Amino acid sequence: MTAMDPLPPDRLALPRSTLQTFAAERDWDQFHSPKNLAAALCVEAAELLEPFQWLTDDSSKSLSPGQITKVREELADVFLYLIRLADKLNIDLLDAAEHKIALNGQRYPVDKARGSSRKYTDL
Amino acid sequence: MTAMDPLPPDRLALPRSTLQTFAAERDWDQFHSPKNLAAALCVEAAELLEPFQWLTDDSSKSLSPGQITKVREELADVFLYLIRLADKLNIDLLDAAEHKIALNGQRYPVDKARGSSRKYTDL
Amino acid sequence: MTAMDPLPPDRLALPRSTLQTFAAERDWDQFHSPKNLAAALCVEAAELLEPFQWLTDDSSKSLSPGQITKVREELADVFLYLIRLADKLNIDLLDAAEHKIALNGQRYPVDKARGSSRKYTDL
Amino acid sequence: MTAMDPLPPDRLALPRSTLQTFAAERDWDQFHSPKNLAAALCVEAAELLEPFQWLTDDSSKSLSPGQITKVREELADVFLYLIRLADKLNIDLLDAAEHKIALNGQRYPVDKARGSSRKYTDL
Repeated sequence: MTAMDPLPPDRLALPRSTLQTFAAERDWDQFHSPKNLAAALCVEAAELLEPFQWLTDDSSKSLSPGQITKVREELADVFLYLIRLADKLNIDLLDAAEHKIALNGQRYPVDKARGSSRKYTDL
Repeated sequence: MTAMDPLPPDRLALPRSTLQTFAAERDWDQFHSPKNLAAALCVEAAELLEPFQWLTDDSSKSLSPGQITKVREELADVFLYLIRLADKLNIDLLDAAEHKIALNGQRYPVDKARGSSRKYTDL
Repeated sequence: MTAMDPLPPDRLALPRSTLQTFAAERDWDQFHSPKNLAAALCVEAAELLEPFQWLTDDSSKSLSPGQITKVREELADVFLYLIRLADKLNIDLLDAAEHKIALNGQRYPVDKARGSSRKYTDL
Repeated sequence: MTAMDPLPPDRLALPRSTLQTFAAERDWDQFHSPKNLAAALCVEAAELLEPFQWLTDDSSKSLSPGQITKVREELADVFLYLIRLADKLNIDLLDAAEHKIALNGQRYPVDKARGSSRKYTDL
């Protein structure tokens, strides 16, 4: 890219705007307080965990097509509520992600964190 | 865009690839089974809910700067685990999101869902 | 026991009543709606999962004394919110548990469920 | 009670022992690692939150009979996994609860905590 190039389009802009329309058409903004969206996101994250709960680590790496379909739908649900909650709070998800990755880099220096699953506060 | 235009860049490609390198440098792939990532995502989703748990709906709409900073970090954590889990399962998050929005459109037709918070199975 | 014996004391009665006093003294009933208590319980359940998230199945069976102390505290937090939520909804936890065990017995007959981690809807 | 009186029976002993038999008959101990039970408990806690997610605080205080039936079943599921997980870790739930209430009393002194929903670290 050069300085003349336009910024790459934000591919989250489309689902964000689609979700806004979706909620407006159904008069759902009355339900979509940040608090409720955070609760809904938590519920969906648990639905995503549910198909994994009794699997071994290894079997979680080779899901059946039926399991993948289910997991894909739950991943999408989490993602949609995440986009919606970030939108309601005026938080840019991609900026926040980049910022957090940088912070994690400081918290988990390679030489200390290598091969360890400890939290940074215990490194 | 015309047929000659390149596809718009996938803005999720950067954090996905950064997270791959991050884990590889720290020898963390041994911990990052889909099962463990789903559990970690669930834990982060609850940490995102935590600052909202005692708030009223209204106060959740006007967070203090300190609360926003905290929530932004938790949103990012959920997002990073979501990207990482989708990557491990070879699921395209944006495709899955578009597919789920279309499905939700069928499940929640405007005339039935307007003003209702009922699940589609109860509409 | 004979018909003359008093009912055995409900050992949940003590923490239930202690929690009522605890909240009243701190003017916390204003926060303890069933909705908020359900959210708080979910947050605590995730804090209970957190120390297990990167462990193998086997290592989760032999926690260190430090891990046990942490897990014991999180178990208690879940239990306290469960008692409090049931109290606010006038639900008897032990009755509900007995009822659910009976229901599970019907849903998971031994001959069908033996050695399987499938949900009853898939048996 | 006098020193001659028997200890009051532990009303958790019955569901604990019933759950042991239930799992043994179905050969489920292979699935019931503390890690998996913690994940299952988290999933059930989110299922308990689900019926509340779009309710107002007030409406969460006056559930319909159908909602109560659903919530009662989810409360029981959380309770059963809690009893089972504590059993697998040799933790006495009622002792842990009493201990935690005492700790909370220190962390949230009445004069500081009255009318506040702040975490003890922020009091």
